[in-house]
Amino acid sequence: MTVTDFLKTLGNSADAVNLTLERLLQMHDDPEAELIEAMRYAVLDGGKRIRPFLVVTSAALFNVKHERALRVAAAVEMVHCYSLVHDDLPAMDDDQLRRGQPTCHVRFGEATAILAGDALLTKAFEVLSDEKTHPDANVRSDLVLALARAAGPEGMVGGQMLDLIAESEELNMPEITRLQRMKTGMLIAVACEAGAILGKATPGAKHALHAYAHDLGLAFQIADDLLDVEGDEKTVGKKTGKDEEAGKATFVSLLGVERAREQAGVLAGQACDHLDLFGKKADSLRNLAAFVINRQA
Amino acid sequence: MTVTDFLKTLGNSADAVNLTLERLLQMHDDPEAELIEAMRYAVLDGGKRIRPFLVVTSAALFNVKHERALRVAAAVEMVHCYSLVHDDLPAMDDDQLRRGQPTCHVRFGEATAILAGDALLTKAFEVLSDEKTHPDANVRSDLVLALARAAGPEGMVGGQMLDLIAESEELNMPEITRLQRMKTGMLIAVACEAGAILGKATPGAKHALHAYAHDLGLAFQIADDLLDVEGDEKTVGKKTGKDEEAGKATFVSLLGVERAREQAGVLAGQACDHLDLFGKKADSLRNLAAFVINRQA
Repeated sequence: MTVTDFLKTLGNSADAVNLTLERLLQMHDDPEAELIEAMRYAVLDGGKRIRPFLVVTSAALFNVKHERALRVAAAVEMVHCYSLVHDDLPAMDDDQLRRGQPTCHVRFGEATAILAGDALLTKAFEVLSDEKTHPDANVRSDLVLALARAAGPEGMVGGQMLDLIAESEELNMPEITRLQRMKTGMLIAVACEAGAILGKATPGAKHALHAYAHDLGLAFQIADDLLDVEGDEKTVGKKTGKDEEAGKATFVSLLGVERAREQAGVLAGQACDHLDLFGKKADSLRNLAAFVINRQA
Repeated sequence: MTVTDFLKTLGNSADAVNLTLERLLQMHDDPEAELIEAMRYAVLDGGKRIRPFLVVTSAALFNVKHERALRVAAAVEMVHCYSLVHDDLPAMDDDQLRRGQPTCHVRFGEATAILAGDALLTKAFEVLSDEKTHPDANVRSDLVLALARAAGPEGMVGGQMLDLIAESEELNMPEITRLQRMKTGMLIAVACEAGAILGKATPGAKHALHAYAHDLGLAFQIADDLLDVEGDEKTVGKKTGKDEEAGKATFVSLLGVERAREQAGVLAGQACDHLDLFGKKADSLRNLAAFVINRQA
């Protein structure tokens, strides 16, 4: 598959996820409609939809019905986007720009942004536990459990707490690795795991996907740190140079640009090695690993 | 059952729920431990635990194992308490006092309070989808779906959005009823519904409990509005006179104190009428209805 072909695949997947999100968050004309508007603003329009792509592509390894994978992909993206909305709040990172647009609280006000984040998180679990997502209740319940663990205090939210602490404490390499694994890695991992749960995969296949996602998540984060240092604000679509400004230790501040780039490459290669048992069927996941470390935004 | 006996029953139930919450939110010594501390601060210590009592008492109608009901009760209380933490934030109601103590953001800072709320909401779904809550995945999945619907944009969060709007718009009686049904009624209703789900109740029994909870929820809210007008800050444990100060229409501002009190009584009576099919087994739920409209805090 050429790079152009892969970007087309990624774009088609994003389109399908956007359509699913749009259907799950339908506008209405009740007086509280602005809440839905803010939720839609936070999840629609923009974003490469890497986590949804991981759900859909992992699920495809096990021949899961596309509509089911798309609903789960949408739920994972809702959780990702709620975390961005809350992360951007004045009391947190105080960001004005996200994907080149005003952040949710700049556009709708702080109170509505807090509620829109809460509503997206809640909606994600509603989607997963709905029979439309999978007729087998074991699958639905396992999806909820996996997503809640990845997003909760032992996962993403715990990682955000560590991120707050990182503003005032100098973290070392193992500490930053743990922070990033919790803050971004676990949601990336659960995206792959969700595909395996939907497909009732064998423990071996689950394990391989988990190992892939683990390495991919770290590679992704290093690439993100590199973009913060080297990226152009217009292309990246959000403020850059933030970590340095906040005095936060990152993979790049600890390793330097050159070694960080090298390390991202090693991790991406390692990620792909875990996919051997799937053969050519996993090529999209391999292409994603290459894409993730080379992206400009 | 005398009033004293009922208060004892309510207190014992609260103790059991507190113990369950404490076990579900264990402190650790990882660097992000302050997040757990803030979550514990928000849910432990204080509170009458009315929603948990509804879960446990409804579940008892169907002879559900006590430990299962307690886990679900804890999950519902986590959702209730997360909503209080976010509701108290400066961008929302900007409250300093809750249950006689500094609110979560006053004690831990705004960023940690936002994350603690997020983490409690997520943890609730983790608890419900865990096999320890119920061995039947259909029950677990149904619990998640019911709680997510009650707490999400069509439920509690939608109601909070309406509450924001109520600050600048004069609502009429049907609008306030809808607001309160969404903001507080649906979580009260799902507490009863959860007992029925755990007990695999018949549709008739489910319907009766739902009707009870609906009327109880409105009676509860009117009593709350009355406390805001007439209650003593020290006894109530939070700022009173808030609605009037904010110029918010409430049941009391629309009906007047006397008619509001009357209406609460009528609703509590109506709530009890729906319980006839359960006979004496439902006496605790009947006592709760009387308690709710007579409470001083």
